[in-house]
Amino acid sequence: MLPSFAHTRFIMVAPSHPGNVGAAARAIKTMGFNELVLVSPKDPDIKNNPEAIALSSGATDVLHNAHLVSTLDEALAPVTLSFALTARSRDMGPPALDIRQSAQLSARHLASAPENRVAVVLGTERTGLENDEISRCHRICHIPANPAYSSLNVSQALQLAAWELRYALMESNSTATPASDIPPEAAYAPSEKVEALVKHWEQALVAIDFLNPAHPKKLMPRMRYLFTRIHMSQEEVDMMRGVCTNIIKHASKK
Amino acid sequence: MLPSFAHTRFIMVAPSHPGNVGAAARAIKTMGFNELVLVSPKDPDIKNNPEAIALSSGATDVLHNAHLVSTLDEALAPVTLSFALTARSRDMGPPALDIRQSAQLSARHLASAPENRVAVVLGTERTGLENDEISRCHRICHIPANPAYSSLNVSQALQLAAWELRYALMESNSTATPASDIPPEAAYAPSEKVEALVKHWEQALVAIDFLNPAHPKKLMPRMRYLFTRIHMSQEEVDMMRGVCTNIIKHASKK
Repeated sequence: MLPSFAHTRFIMVAPSHPGNVGAAARAIKTMGFNELVLVSPKDPDIKNNPEAIALSSGATDVLHNAHLVSTLDEALAPVTLSFALTARSRDMGPPALDIRQSAQLSARHLASAPENRVAVVLGTERTGLENDEISRCHRICHIPANPAYSSLNVSQALQLAAWELRYALMESNSTATPASDIPPEAAYAPSEKVEALVKHWEQALVAIDFLNPAHPKKLMPRMRYLFTRIHMSQEEVDMMRGVCTNIIKHASKK
Repeated sequence: MLPSFAHTRFIMVAPSHPGNVGAAARAIKTMGFNELVLVSPKDPDIKNNPEAIALSSGATDVLHNAHLVSTLDEALAPVTLSFALTARSRDMGPPALDIRQSAQLSARHLASAPENRVAVVLGTERTGLENDEISRCHRICHIPANPAYSSLNVSQALQLAAWELRYALMESNSTATPASDIPPEAAYAPSEKVEALVKHWEQALVAIDFLNPAHPKKLMPRMRYLFTRIHMSQEEVDMMRGVCTNIIKHASKK
């Protein structure tokens, strides 16, 4: 398997229908990927669910090797570029791309550094991704289906996104750009580092009375949006962590 | 419906599973098309088949309006450019295209004359298209799936081909430039406001002893890069100005 395929994961948040998980495993394998992460599936024994196994149609290895985690943060921890696949548009949240643009961006991202990791995040069946979940992703992506009838279920949406990723990664691997032509890109901070920064920043804002923990309002989602959209390097995260430390140190001296 | 969508048909040869016909109808409608042609389906009363209706999931109009014919020649009669979707290769005729190349060729073909008609032809479930059927099509097209596991069923293959056609036709019909990485029109802060924020932030960093004005090093250029790259809205600039004010207020209390 090409590294770019091995460095791409599909994350399903709270899937409730085992058949969809099986169909997702099949779609993932058909397109040459293998990493499925399940955040709190309704059936905790999903790997042994007969319907999931039946619908995986031979891609039982992907189902069997799926990572089960309890939060989206855990699923995103090592990821350096994440896409929330959603039909919703919002006033807040990262800029939206369609799944082709997302796939092309992913291919460039994966080619730019061997430690980069990409994820596509899909929501629960009935309601899709929550604002809070979307805000943890770098980008929103969508499938521009028929506006009058956009009846795609979660495994079909995953199938289309996986196809686009496959196509972009195959193209990217076949054009074989000399390494020197690729502009040196900074090492992006993985999501867990950014999330740790957001938590530290929150403490700093409380320390200077900017954030009232009793009445947080929309402040932290707005801050998280700033910190994810910016797509920070590890160096920048470290720098901002230093700022947080000093803010807290000085505020407690009062 | 755009003419290019109305001038595109999907032809299923001898479908044996009614569920696949229903799922195909759904995929066709989801991608903005409406024309399904069935060549000798195993169930001649397929339009009233409960499984077909169930899997069409609301796209019953496409199922109900499907043309039933007895030969592939009849199905192809008005078509000016046809694609045999198959995993097989043939030793004669034009080289195989993938479904993206086919879709782009289709878009150009449909745009070149109003009477042009395109068709994608899919074979029966177990064995796919026969050589004799392939030879009736202008081109072969294929889905470059994982060679080690290319387990796509006929309705999933149709879904991917329909998606590619939709994307190519939308691009061809759209005069607008494709969406870029730039976020949708937010009220962007003018540069002078961002510059004022950077100055304010600098004062805050001095106040908490993070920045030593005597030895600034590369800190402020790094911070400016962060604050400009993020492309902030005026609201976000105001929010961060508030943070600066509070940092300074608390730091001077020490």
